Amino acid sequence: MIKNITNVRGISCWGAHTGIKSLRRDLAIIFSEKPGSVGAVFTQNKVIAEPLKISKKNVQDGTAQAIIINSGNANCCTGEQGYKGAEAMVKATAKELNIKCEDVIVASTGIIGEPFPTNDILKGIKDIAPKVSKKSSAGSFAANAILTTDTYAKEGFLEFKLDDYAINMGGIAKGSGMIHPNMATMLCFILTDASIEPKLLQKAVKESVDKTFNMITVDGDTSTNDMVVVLANGMAENETIVSEKSEWYVEFRTRLEEVMSHLAQLIVLDGEGASKFIQYDVINASDELEASKLARKVSSSSLVKTAIFGRDPNWGRILVAAGNAGVPFDYEKVDLYLGNDKQKVLLMEQGKPQQYNKNLMKKILRESQIFITLDMCQGDKEARAWGSDLTTDYVLFNSVYTT
Amino acid sequence: MIKNITNVRGISCWGAHTGIKSLRRDLAIIFSEKPGSVGAVFTQNKVIAEPLKISKKNVQDGTAQAIIINSGNANCCTGEQGYKGAEAMVKATAKELNIKCEDVIVASTGIIGEPFPTNDILKGIKDIAPKVSKKSSAGSFAANAILTTDTYAKEGFLEFKLDDYAINMGGIAKGSGMIHPNMATMLCFILTDASIEPKLLQKAVKESVDKTFNMITVDGDTSTNDMVVVLANGMAENETIVSEKSEWYVEFRTRLEEVMSHLAQLIVLDGEGASKFIQYDVINASDELEASKLARKVSSSSLVKTAIFGRDPNWGRILVAAGNAGVPFDYEKVDLYLGNDKQKVLLMEQGKPQQYNKNLMKKILRESQIFITLDMCQGDKEARAWGSDLTTDYVLFNSVYTT
Repeated sequence: MIKNITNVRGISCWGAHTGIKSLRRDLAIIFSEKPGSVGAVFTQNKVIAEPLKISKKNVQDGTAQAIIINSGNANCCTGEQGYKGAEAMVKATAKELNIKCEDVIVASTGIIGEPFPTNDILKGIKDIAPKVSKKSSAGSFAANAILTTDTYAKEGFLEFKLDDYAINMGGIAKGSGMIHPNMATMLCFILTDASIEPKLLQKAVKESVDKTFNMITVDGDTSTNDMVVVLANGMAENETIVSEKSEWYVEFRTRLEEVMSHLAQLIVLDGEGASKFIQYDVINASDELEASKLARKVSSSSLVKTAIFGRDPNWGRILVAAGNAGVPFDYEKVDLYLGNDKQKVLLMEQGKPQQYNKNLMKKILRESQIFITLDMCQGDKEARAWGSDLTTDYVLFNSVYTT
Repeated sequence: MIKNITNVRGISCWGAHTGIKSLRRDLAIIFSEKPGSVGAVFTQNKVIAEPLKISKKNVQDGTAQAIIINSGNANCCTGEQGYKGAEAMVKATAKELNIKCEDVIVASTGIIGEPFPTNDILKGIKDIAPKVSKKSSAGSFAANAILTTDTYAKEGFLEFKLDDYAINMGGIAKGSGMIHPNMATMLCFILTDASIEPKLLQKAVKESVDKTFNMITVDGDTSTNDMVVVLANGMAENETIVSEKSEWYVEFRTRLEEVMSHLAQLIVLDGEGASKFIQYDVINASDELEASKLARKVSSSSLVKTAIFGRDPNWGRILVAAGNAGVPFDYEKVDLYLGNDKQKVLLMEQGKPQQYNKNLMKKILRESQIFITLDMCQGDKEARAWGSDLTTDYVLFNSVYTT
């Protein structure tokens, strides 16, 4: 049996079909026996969905105890009707679980601009709140209920130790379309029983998101509904982590990034119409932020993405995309590789194209996972990004979305 | 008979096939009887092709007399061999035309990273320099010789008056792939017989490029070779324009933008794999730069572009893309229209989706030219951008480019 968020002490959940979507599950609830520290990041889009307005307020005190999420309707561009709907979701959840409204996080995902089906959802909350469970299947139901065009549920779980304390950490996520840095149309909810001070948790969340969810791209558009929420309920009873200099913090932060990295990659693997998963490494850069900008820019290039779809080792497009990142660098120092440690081809050395083994290159480009490494040869900083290719399927899928 | 750059006083040119490309013309030369003022802008990409290094130096004194351009090889990532090749092109052109090296502008476009075929090109220069002609067909030969994946030559010409002085202004351009603001993989050469002081010409060029070539996008990638050069040889004998406050400057600047706008739109119309030409207007914004950012961001969105390809009036994607422009605005004030004055549909009013005539919408989306207007209702500033849709043909075209 798999372990998932239900293996985190005190966490129970459920996911069910309430009628917002025609067939699939569309409402999920996650409940923590005890209120815990919460850290969260929200979309940078200037158009913000209604539930985010409430969730942003409710995380400000650093405490949360439950998360309620619907899929099928994004509750965005719905005005007052939508805002009241989100508010009602929070109230109903707090009432059913007998907790405070301010400790409820609310999220929505789905179509923008449709009237919000408040009544159906309120009925659903009444229905599912009593069913929250610690069964593994309940975790899977919740993971499935937050999906939209995703083709599979995204779950992650790991255990680690803070000295003698065994810590559990699990998460669920959704992605698929509109996936891009600064956030993506994506939701991610991570639960842990570690005890950590809210401000420090927020710091860990921000840093980990910058290295994971903000480094993935499917199509360059950032949605109105994105959020990553981490709830740490302290039920592992470790002494609360209060200093960023403590070893425990470093361990916690590392493991959080590990879970996020896993979920972020699952999102890219399920990108709309994607045929390949591409990992971009920028190494030996003179600055970490610059390395990150370079990796993101190359991973966002339509020309690079179509080349990978076409199994074309078009190093020129990779270099040109890097040149567009707004980062100063001397391209006549740069090396470029395709492939990973198992099989690798040097495409460009010190800015000059190289002769290479064409059969090996063909073999590398036939794989479903492609690795691109840009060695700046200018320092010791690095960054990693993940993206998908740009396919005819992507275009077809997105050209007929609403009709 | 059409009028083109050869109708500018003192301008003669030629374009021929010298063997860089297999069949089509690949070398163009433009010569001005007298040296003139020059204004130019170059790519912002950090990876810069060899000829640009020389041309940037040669425009610094504000004077130029000839332009030599090859297509088929971009002379980029070619190191010293390429730099020497570009230098040799300048020397040969100056020698054949009996002018100064510093008055020659050199440009290249085509494949990146192939060794530069210097000898073929030098032979070509010797061959075509004596052929420069004022025949209309010579202008057409030059316009064709600078193309790469373009499917047609881009020419523009207009006449206007500065009081009693008749001014001619003509230009040629190329585009097709990697078209995006700050510049595009594009070349544009404009010739005029107006007399204008070099610094003022540079100002006019910069301002006009910002409103035209920097407002078009095909696929978001900016190339290593882009440049816009304007040469004003003063042979209309008007008193030299020396003040930006003079009526003549305003007229000159307006006409320059008109020629650039025409050529920029021709480039978008010929975008790789494009099935539709889309004009984006952002109106009633509180700031011009912000309006421009909004228009550019929406025009670059893969999701907006695929929706238009699929004839899908997906207003949500347009609003989301605007929200990603990094510009603060209140989306609950925004109106959104599809169509132009002849036939228009209101999709969204004050941030709320509207009921509309579905048959009229279908008719509008069947057109090959699509007009999108985002009314910010927050001021009186505006900006216009042009782009293409994202099609399955684009993906197929770019997935098999080098193989």
